[in-house]
Amino acid sequence: MPEELSLLIVRDLKSLDAGQHGRPFASLLVVKKLASKTASNGNSFFSLELGDRSGSFSCTVFNDSPVFEALKLAGEGAVVRIEGKIEFYQGRLSPRLAKAVPLAESELGAPGVLDNLVETPPEDQHALWQEFQGFIDAIKHDELRMTVRGVFDEIGETFRWSPAAVAMHHAYRHGLLEHTVHMARVCQALLPLYTEVDPGLALAGILLHDTGKAIEYEGTLATKRSRRGILQGHVVLGYQLARKHGIRAKLDADRLERLEHIILSHQGEPEWGAAVYAATPEAVFVSMIDNLDAKMGMVQRALRQADPNNEFSERLPGLSSQLLTRKPPGPPPEQLPL
Amino acid sequence: MPEELSLLIVRDLKSLDAGQHGRPFASLLVVKKLASKTASNGNSFFSLELGDRSGSFSCTVFNDSPVFEALKLAGEGAVVRIEGKIEFYQGRLSPRLAKAVPLAESELGAPGVLDNLVETPPEDQHALWQEFQGFIDAIKHDELRMTVRGVFDEIGETFRWSPAAVAMHHAYRHGLLEHTVHMARVCQALLPLYTEVDPGLALAGILLHDTGKAIEYEGTLATKRSRRGILQGHVVLGYQLARKHGIRAKLDADRLERLEHIILSHQGEPEWGAAVYAATPEAVFVSMIDNLDAKMGMVQRALRQADPNNEFSERLPGLSSQLLTRKPPGPPPEQLPL
Amino acid sequence: MPEELSLLIVRDLKSLDAGQHGRPFASLLVVKKLASKTASNGNSFFSLELGDRSGSFSCTVFNDSPVFEALKLAGEGAVVRIEGKIEFYQGRLSPRLAKAVPLAESELGAPGVLDNLVETPPEDQHALWQEFQGFIDAIKHDELRMTVRGVFDEIGETFRWSPAAVAMHHAYRHGLLEHTVHMARVCQALLPLYTEVDPGLALAGILLHDTGKAIEYEGTLATKRSRRGILQGHVVLGYQLARKHGIRAKLDADRLERLEHIILSHQGEPEWGAAVYAATPEAVFVSMIDNLDAKMGMVQRALRQADPNNEFSERLPGLSSQLLTRKPPGPPPEQLPL
Amino acid sequence: MPEELSLLIVRDLKSLDAGQHGRPFASLLVVKKLASKTASNGNSFFSLELGDRSGSFSCTVFNDSPVFEALKLAGEGAVVRIEGKIEFYQGRLSPRLAKAVPLAESELGAPGVLDNLVETPPEDQHALWQEFQGFIDAIKHDELRMTVRGVFDEIGETFRWSPAAVAMHHAYRHGLLEHTVHMARVCQALLPLYTEVDPGLALAGILLHDTGKAIEYEGTLATKRSRRGILQGHVVLGYQLARKHGIRAKLDADRLERLEHIILSHQGEPEWGAAVYAATPEAVFVSMIDNLDAKMGMVQRALRQADPNNEFSERLPGLSSQLLTRKPPGPPPEQLPL
Amino acid sequence: MPEELSLLIVRDLKSLDAGQHGRPFASLLVVKKLASKTASNGNSFFSLELGDRSGSFSCTVFNDSPVFEALKLAGEGAVVRIEGKIEFYQGRLSPRLAKAVPLAESELGAPGVLDNLVETPPEDQHALWQEFQGFIDAIKHDELRMTVRGVFDEIGETFRWSPAAVAMHHAYRHGLLEHTVHMARVCQALLPLYTEVDPGLALAGILLHDTGKAIEYEGTLATKRSRRGILQGHVVLGYQLARKHGIRAKLDADRLERLEHIILSHQGEPEWGAAVYAATPEAVFVSMIDNLDAKMGMVQRALRQADPNNEFSERLPGLSSQLLTRKPPGPPPEQLPL
Amino acid sequence: MPEELSLLIVRDLKSLDAGQHGRPFASLLVVKKLASKTASNGNSFFSLELGDRSGSFSCTVFNDSPVFEALKLAGEGAVVRIEGKIEFYQGRLSPRLAKAVPLAESELGAPGVLDNLVETPPEDQHALWQEFQGFIDAIKHDELRMTVRGVFDEIGETFRWSPAAVAMHHAYRHGLLEHTVHMARVCQALLPLYTEVDPGLALAGILLHDTGKAIEYEGTLATKRSRRGILQGHVVLGYQLARKHGIRAKLDADRLERLEHIILSHQGEPEWGAAVYAATPEAVFVSMIDNLDAKMGMVQRALRQADPNNEFSERLPGLSSQLLTRKPPGPPPEQLPL
Repeated sequence: MPEELSLLIVRDLKSLDAGQHGRPFASLLVVKKLASKTASNGNSFFSLELGDRSGSFSCTVFNDSPVFEALKLAGEGAVVRIEGKIEFYQGRLSPRLAKAVPLAESELGAPGVLDNLVETPPEDQHALWQEFQGFIDAIKHDELRMTVRGVFDEIGETFRWSPAAVAMHHAYRHGLLEHTVHMARVCQALLPLYTEVDPGLALAGILLHDTGKAIEYEGTLATKRSRRGILQGHVVLGYQLARKHGIRAKLDADRLERLEHIILSHQGEPEWGAAVYAATPEAVFVSMIDNLDAKMGMVQRALRQADPNNEFSERLPGLSSQLLTRKPPGPPPEQLPL
Repeated sequence: MPEELSLLIVRDLKSLDAGQHGRPFASLLVVKKLASKTASNGNSFFSLELGDRSGSFSCTVFNDSPVFEALKLAGEGAVVRIEGKIEFYQGRLSPRLAKAVPLAESELGAPGVLDNLVETPPEDQHALWQEFQGFIDAIKHDELRMTVRGVFDEIGETFRWSPAAVAMHHAYRHGLLEHTVHMARVCQALLPLYTEVDPGLALAGILLHDTGKAIEYEGTLATKRSRRGILQGHVVLGYQLARKHGIRAKLDADRLERLEHIILSHQGEPEWGAAVYAATPEAVFVSMIDNLDAKMGMVQRALRQADPNNEFSERLPGLSSQLLTRKPPGPPPEQLPL
Repeated sequence: MPEELSLLIVRDLKSLDAGQHGRPFASLLVVKKLASKTASNGNSFFSLELGDRSGSFSCTVFNDSPVFEALKLAGEGAVVRIEGKIEFYQGRLSPRLAKAVPLAESELGAPGVLDNLVETPPEDQHALWQEFQGFIDAIKHDELRMTVRGVFDEIGETFRWSPAAVAMHHAYRHGLLEHTVHMARVCQALLPLYTEVDPGLALAGILLHDTGKAIEYEGTLATKRSRRGILQGHVVLGYQLARKHGIRAKLDADRLERLEHIILSHQGEPEWGAAVYAATPEAVFVSMIDNLDAKMGMVQRALRQADPNNEFSERLPGLSSQLLTRKPPGPPPEQLPL
Repeated sequence: MPEELSLLIVRDLKSLDAGQHGRPFASLLVVKKLASKTASNGNSFFSLELGDRSGSFSCTVFNDSPVFEALKLAGEGAVVRIEGKIEFYQGRLSPRLAKAVPLAESELGAPGVLDNLVETPPEDQHALWQEFQGFIDAIKHDELRMTVRGVFDEIGETFRWSPAAVAMHHAYRHGLLEHTVHMARVCQALLPLYTEVDPGLALAGILLHDTGKAIEYEGTLATKRSRRGILQGHVVLGYQLARKHGIRAKLDADRLERLEHIILSHQGEPEWGAAVYAATPEAVFVSMIDNLDAKMGMVQRALRQADPNNEFSERLPGLSSQLLTRKPPGPPPEQLPL
Repeated sequence: MPEELSLLIVRDLKSLDAGQHGRPFASLLVVKKLASKTASNGNSFFSLELGDRSGSFSCTVFNDSPVFEALKLAGEGAVVRIEGKIEFYQGRLSPRLAKAVPLAESELGAPGVLDNLVETPPEDQHALWQEFQGFIDAIKHDELRMTVRGVFDEIGETFRWSPAAVAMHHAYRHGLLEHTVHMARVCQALLPLYTEVDPGLALAGILLHDTGKAIEYEGTLATKRSRRGILQGHVVLGYQLARKHGIRAKLDADRLERLEHIILSHQGEPEWGAAVYAATPEAVFVSMIDNLDAKMGMVQRALRQADPNNEFSERLPGLSSQLLTRKPPGPPPEQLPL
Repeated sequence: MPEELSLLIVRDLKSLDAGQHGRPFASLLVVKKLASKTASNGNSFFSLELGDRSGSFSCTVFNDSPVFEALKLAGEGAVVRIEGKIEFYQGRLSPRLAKAVPLAESELGAPGVLDNLVETPPEDQHALWQEFQGFIDAIKHDELRMTVRGVFDEIGETFRWSPAAVAMHHAYRHGLLEHTVHMARVCQALLPLYTEVDPGLALAGILLHDTGKAIEYEGTLATKRSRRGILQGHVVLGYQLARKHGIRAKLDADRLERLEHIILSHQGEPEWGAAVYAATPEAVFVSMIDNLDAKMGMVQRALRQADPNNEFSERLPGLSSQLLTRKPPGPPPEQLPL
C-alpha cells in the first residue's frame, strides 16, 4: 500500500459507491468508541466506531489482525492513521482495516489535522485563552480574583479544550472557552447599564459558572459524560471547585456564598438543572446572559453551516424552529454609531 | 371644612384607628373603579374604588349626595380631590365622602401630584422620551426608520404613559417606555459582539416589539385590558401597527416580513404568547434581550423598594424566589475598566 | 425501452426483490425533493426523492445524464413519467433513471393520474367546491359575505388544493376544502341548538379560519412550509387575509374584529398556536367544531384504510390510541328518526 | 314577631348596613353546612352555613336555643323558614336566629320557592325529562335501549336533580339533565354527517356517559362529593352502572364493551380523568360532543348572567378568558335557511 | 438437511457475515408476528417476525412453500423448530425457510427451551407461585381471602406467565408474578412499622392490584395489548375482577369498596392511569410499594445484565439515567444485624 | 391583674365574642413575627404575630408601652407569658397587651408547655434520638460510620428539633428526626429483600439525606428559610456536610462519591429539587423510601387529627385528595403472622 495515498475524510468514504469495493484508502480518524466483545467461538474482537468532523462509521476488528493490538494500545479517544480497503457489509460502509498507526500528541498540532477531526470555533483558541486571562485580571477584588485564578490553575487545561455541551449550543472543541469568553464580553458591555450588579461577582460568576463541565465531559476528541458527571452533575461540580478555591484564597464568607449561588442557580429553572432559583442581582444577570449567548451561539453556528441554496437551515432543536440564514436584501448595513 | 386640611395618602387613612371615627380629612385620589348599581329600593348608587400609590379602599355613594354627580362627570380613571369624614363600616375603612373635585389635566403636572398617585420609573420620563427619539434616528435604513417613526406618530403619546405589564415587570406608569429604552441600550451595547445581527432591524424590532401594549392596556391611571387587547392580544396588535406603517413607508417586503416576525415571535414560546418561534438572527436576539431586561427590571424595582431591616425581599413571582437585596460587604466596587 | 411498459406504483417497485436487478420499468411520479449538490470531484448532481401515493424512494442523478436537465426544468413538485432500470444500492431501491418526461398540467386531469399520485378525499372535490360556494351565499350580512367572497377570490384556487395539515388530520390534497365543508355542515346542523351564536359570523369564521394554511403550505404535490408560514404562521396569515378583505368590503369595525378574533383564537390554547383564547360565543363555537371535525376526520381516514384482517388500526398519534375499525355485530342500524 | 314579615333573600340581608342592627327579618334558606362542635365550657353548639341562590352566611346556634333542636332534626341540605334579628359580629352579617321551621318536601314545589333557593336551567325540567325519555326510545337496538332504561330506572330520580359539576359547566340543579339532553340533541343533528358512527351506541353512550355523577355528588341542595365519588370517581361509577344493566338486559358482549368504553373514555385525556383514550368512532364522537356542549354551556350561562353595563363578563375559568357578552351591532340576524 | 444441525440462537445467526450465504441452520423460535398479505399478482404470503430471547428478524413465506401451512396452523405466539438457509436480502438477515415444526406445549418444558426463548426472572417460578399461595393464606379475613382466591381461580394460570409490562419494569415472562411476590414481601416487612394500615386489605390489594394486566396483555410468548386492554385498561379490568369475586364471596360492601379503591388508585396519578387519587391508608401504602419495587426491579435487571467492562449500564428510560453497576470497593458488606 | 388568671390558648381567645370586650386574660405564646415600623408621627412600634399550636393573631405595640422593651429583648421565636385585655379592632381579635414576660429556656421543659405551643410527633423525642444513635452504630464500615457521626456532632442539636418541612409532611418540631428514624426502620426491614443494595451506604444515606434542612430552616419555634437555605438549598447544604466529614474521616473517594450522590439525588426529579437522577442502587432505594415515608407521614398525621364526626379528612395537598380516616368495619385485624 503506497505511502502516497491521499487522505480521505469520512464523507468522501461514504460517497463511494459499491463499484469501489476493494479500493485502498487512508484516513486520519478518531477512535470514538472501542468495545471489546467475545464471539461465540470464544475469540475476542473489537467493535469500534471511527470518525472525523464529517461523520463516522462502525467496523469490527478480530484479535488475529495486526490492527487489534494497535487499537488496544491507542484506546478510545486516540487519533489513528488508518489504511485499509473499502468494503460494504449489509449495505453500509464497513472497510477492512489493514493498518492503524496512532498519532503522537505532538503530531496533532500539525496544520489541518485537528481541524479535520473535530469542529472548532471560528476564533483562534489561543487568542480566546489570552482574552480569558484578561477577564480574570479585570476582577478588582483580590480574594475573588485569586479564587478564580485558583480554579483555572487546577482545571484550566481541560477547560480550554472542552465543548460547552454534548449536543446543543457550542457543542464542539473549545466551545466552553468560546462561550465563556462571549459571555464575559457581554457582561462587560452591559455592566454600565445595570449598575446594581456587582462587577467583580458577575464577572467571576461568568468565568466559573460552567467549570463543572470540564469534569462532567470526558475525553477531548470523543466526548461522553464521566462518572462524576453522572453522579454529581456539572452544577455541583462547579460549585465545589469554587468553594475549594474560595476557601483557599480566604474569600470572605458572604462573597463566597454569593459566588457559589451564581453557579448553583445559573441554569435558571430546577427542571433545567438549577439547584436553586437565582436570588441575587448577579445571579439573575449571569443566568440571563448565559441564556442569551447560548441561543446566539446556535444562531452563529447555523449561519456558519448555512447552505447557500437554501433560505432556511434545518430545524434547530434548541430554537424549536428552522432559521432564516439568508441576509436581508440591499447593501450590508453600516455599523450603527453610538 | 377648612381649606387648610393637609392631604393624607391612603396608607395614612388606613393607619387611623377606630378612635378617629368622624375625623375630617382630604386626599388626592384616582377613581380606580366606578360601577353604577341599583339598590333594592330602586335608587341608583355608585360602588367605587379610590386609591393612590400607597393603597386603595372601596366606598359607596348614593345618588342623593352632591358627590354623585361630580364622580359621574369625572368618570373612571379621573383624579379627584376628596373631602370627607373617616368612618369604618364592617371593620374596614369606608369614609363618608362630602366633596369631590376633579383635577384638570393641567393640575396633574404640579410637583408631587402624580408621584403620589402612581408609581413611576426612577429616570425622568422626558429624558427617556428624548433618548427614545435618538434611537429612532439611529436606524440608518430610511424606510425602516420611517416605519418606526410612523408607528410612534400614531400611538406615541399613549405609549409614553403605558405600563409594560399589569403585574410583573415594569408594571407602572412610563414602564413601557423605560423597558423599551433599556432594551435599546442593551441592543447598542451588544451589536458589536453579535455582528451577524442586522443593526437596523434589531433596533427597529426592539422599539416596536411591545407597541401593541399601548392598545392592549386602557386608561392611564387605572389600567385594565381593552376590548382589542382581549380579542387580539398585544402581539397581533403590534404586528398590525408595524405592517400598516411599513406599507405606508414603502419598506421592502422582505425587510417588513422580518420586522413583523420579530414582533410575532418576541414572547419566546407559544405558551407565553408568541405567534411563532423566533426564526431569524434578529428575532432570537430581540427575544433574549427582552427576557434579560424584564428580569433585571424586577430586580431593580425590588432593590428600590428594599426594606433596610430585611436582607431579603418578599417572594417575587417573576423570579420564583425572594431576592437578596443587601449589598456584598466591603467598599463599593469601582467600575471595571476596559 | 418499449412504449408499452405498464406503469408501476412505488409499492410495486419496492416489492421486487434483488433477483429483478436490471429489469426495466416505467412510473408516473412526483418530484418530492430535488436538492442540487456538488461531488468531491466538482461535478454537480441531484439528490432527489420521487414518490406517489403508495410510497417514495431516493436516488441520485449526475449532470452527465439526460435526465438531469429534464428534472432541472421540471423542478420540485412536478409530475414526471420516469423510465429506468431497477437497481438496489446499499440494500435500498435506487433505480437508474434513463428518461424523465414532465407531464403538462392538462395531463394531470386524465382519469387515474392524480388518484395514483396523491391521496384525496372520498368526496368529489368539484362537488365539495360547489357546496362551499353555497355556504358563502348562505351568509345573509352583505359586507360579511363580501369579505369572505373577497378572500376566496384571492386565494381560492390554492385553498381548493391544499391539505389541512402536513401530518395529522385531513393531511391530503383537497383536505382543507373537505375539512372546511364538513365544519360548515356541522355549523348549519348545530345553529338551531345554540341560538346565542350569530349564524353569519360563525359561518364566515368557519370558512375563513384556516385560509392561512393555503399560504403556510407550499406546493400542491410536495408539501412543505413556506417562508411566510415559518415567519408568521397560518393563524396570523389568515387573520391578515380577513382583515384586508373586511376593510375592502367596508365591513363594520365591530363585526370585523369579531371575525378576526375567531381566526386568532380557533386553535384553542396558546400552546397549540392560538394568539388569544376564544372570548366570543362564535369563537368558542368555531373552535370546538374545528376540534370535533379534526378528530372525526382522523377516524374517517383510519376506517377508509382499515385492514380487514385486523380489528384495530395502527396507533393514531392524533388520537393517542389505536382505533377499533371493525363494526359492531348484527344488522347495520337503521338511521335514527327524529 | 308578626307573620307578615316579607321574605328577604341573602343579598338583601347583606346589603343592610350597621344601622339596621336588631331589625327582625324572615327568609327561606337551605342549610348548606351543619357542623356540631363543643365549646370550651363543654356545651355543644352548631356552626352552620345558611344560604340561597343569592349568597350565604355563617352563624352559630347554641344548644340552649329553641332553634338548635329544629336544625338538628332538619339536617344538612334541608330548607328552613328562618326568623331572627339582624346582627353583625366582627363586621360580618351574623343574625341571631329565633325560629327555624323546616319546609316539607311538598312545600318546595310552591311557585318561586326553589327558584330562589338554587340556580336552575332556563328550560323547564319537566320538559327536559320528557325529551330525555324520547331519546331513550329512539335507540332501536332492543337490548341497548333496555340497558339504558335499566340504568335510569335505578338512578333516574337522582340524575334529574343533579348538577353536572360542582364548579365549571352546568353546575346547578338539573344541570346534568340539561347537559345530557343538549348533547343528545347535538348527536341527533350530527349523526347524518358522520355516518360511520353507530347511532344507537352513540346515543346510548351520551345518555349514560355522566350517570356516575348522580352518585358522585351527594345532596340535592347542598352538593358535595360522596364517599363513592371520592373512592371510585364518576367514570368508574358510570361504567359499573352500564355494566350491571347491560348484563341484566342480555346486551351482547361486543356492544356492551363498546358502550362501557364510551363511558370510560369520555373525559378525553387520562389527566382529565379518562380511564383510557377513546378508541372507537362512537367514543371519539361522544367525547368531542361532551367537550363542545360543556364549553357552550359556560357561554350560555355567562350570557344569562351578563351585566348590561359591561361589555365583558368576569374571567371564566373554564374558558381561560372573559367573554364578550354584548351582541354584534345591527338587526338580529335572521336564522339561516337550509 | 441432517438432523444433527446444532440449534443457533438469533444473535448467532445475525453475527454470520455475507460469506455464509446459503449455509443451512436450525433454530427454535417464537412466531412473534404473522401477518397475511396479498401480493400484486394475487398470491397470498406471510410477512412474519421470528425471534428468541437474543433478538428477532423478519422474513417472508409465500403460499407455495410447505412452511406456509405449518405456520398458518401454528399461529402467532407459537414456538417452532425452523430449518432453512442463511440469506441476506437488502443487507439484512432474511433466511429462506425450508421447514417449520411447531413444538407441542409439553415440549416447551424441556430444559433450556423456554430459557432460550424468553427472558425469565432469576427466581424459580414454581417457588414464586408457591410463595404466592402462602400470601393468600396469610389474609385472615375470610371473605377477603376468598375474594382473592376467587380471582386467581379464574385468571391464575394467565397471571403466572404474564410480564408486568410491555417495556419498563419486570417486562418478561413471569414478571407479573415476580413483581407481585416482591411487593407482598415488602408489605409483610413494613406492616409492623405502619400499624395504621389494615394488613389484610393491604396484602389483598397488592395481590390483586395488577391482575388486570393478565387480561390486558395477550399471548404468553409474543405480548401485545388485547382488545379489552385497549378498550378498558388494566386498572378497570382488575377492578372488575375484584368486584365480581368480592360480591361472590359476600365480602362486606365497605371492605370491598376499599379493596376496589386500592386497585383504582394504585397508579398514583391520573396521568399515569389512576382512576382516582389514593384516599385510604392502604391505597397510599400499596401505591408507594408498587413504585418502590418497580424501580428496584429495573435496578435488579440492569445489574443482572451488567457488562463487566463497563462501570455504567446504558441509559435506563425508567430511571432517566444510566446506572452505576459496579460494586463499591472493599470486602462485601456483612448483612447488618439489628 | 391577679396572678391566678388561668392560661387560655389562642383558639379560646378567638372564640370569645364581642361581649367579652375588655376581659383580662393570660396566655403562653410564641413571638412568631416581630417587625419594627415607624408611624407617620415618627414613633416606632412593633407589628407582631403571637401564636401557639392552636392558632395565631396579630397586634401592635407602641414604644411607650412597657411591653415594647420586653418584646425587643425577647426577640422573634421567643416564648412569652402575655397578660392583657381582650379587644377587637376592625372585627378581628387584637388584644391590648399589658405585660410580657419571656420564659427562660429551662421553663420550656415544664410539662405541657411546649406541647401547647408547637405540634410534636406522637413518639417521644428522646427515644427517637436514642434509636437514631443505634442506627449510626449499625453502620459497619468504620470511615462511613465516622462520617455520619461527624455530621451529627456538628449539627445534631439543630437536627433534633427541626421540622422535616415548612408545610407538607412531618412539618412540626422533631419532624425531621421522626421522618429519618422511620426511614431507617424501613431500610432495615427491606435490606434482606434487596440484597443488591449496600447496607452501610443505604443507611448512611438515609441518616444524612435531609441534614441540609437543619440549616435551611431557621428558628426552633418560628420556622422560616435561612439565607443559606435560599441561596443554596438543603440538597447542596447536606451534600456539603457529608463531603466535609467524609474527607475528615478519610472515607475512600469511591464510597464518598456514592454517599454524596444519594443526597444529591434523593428528591427524585430535578423539578422537585434533585441535582441529578438517582444512578446507584442505593440512591434509587433511598429515594423511594423517602417518598414512601413522606406520604405515609401525611396519612399518619391526618389520622391523628381526624374528626370523629367526619369519615374524611379535609383535602390534603400532598395526597391531592381527602383521606378516609374511618377504620374498616369489624374487629381490629390481628397482626399478620409470618
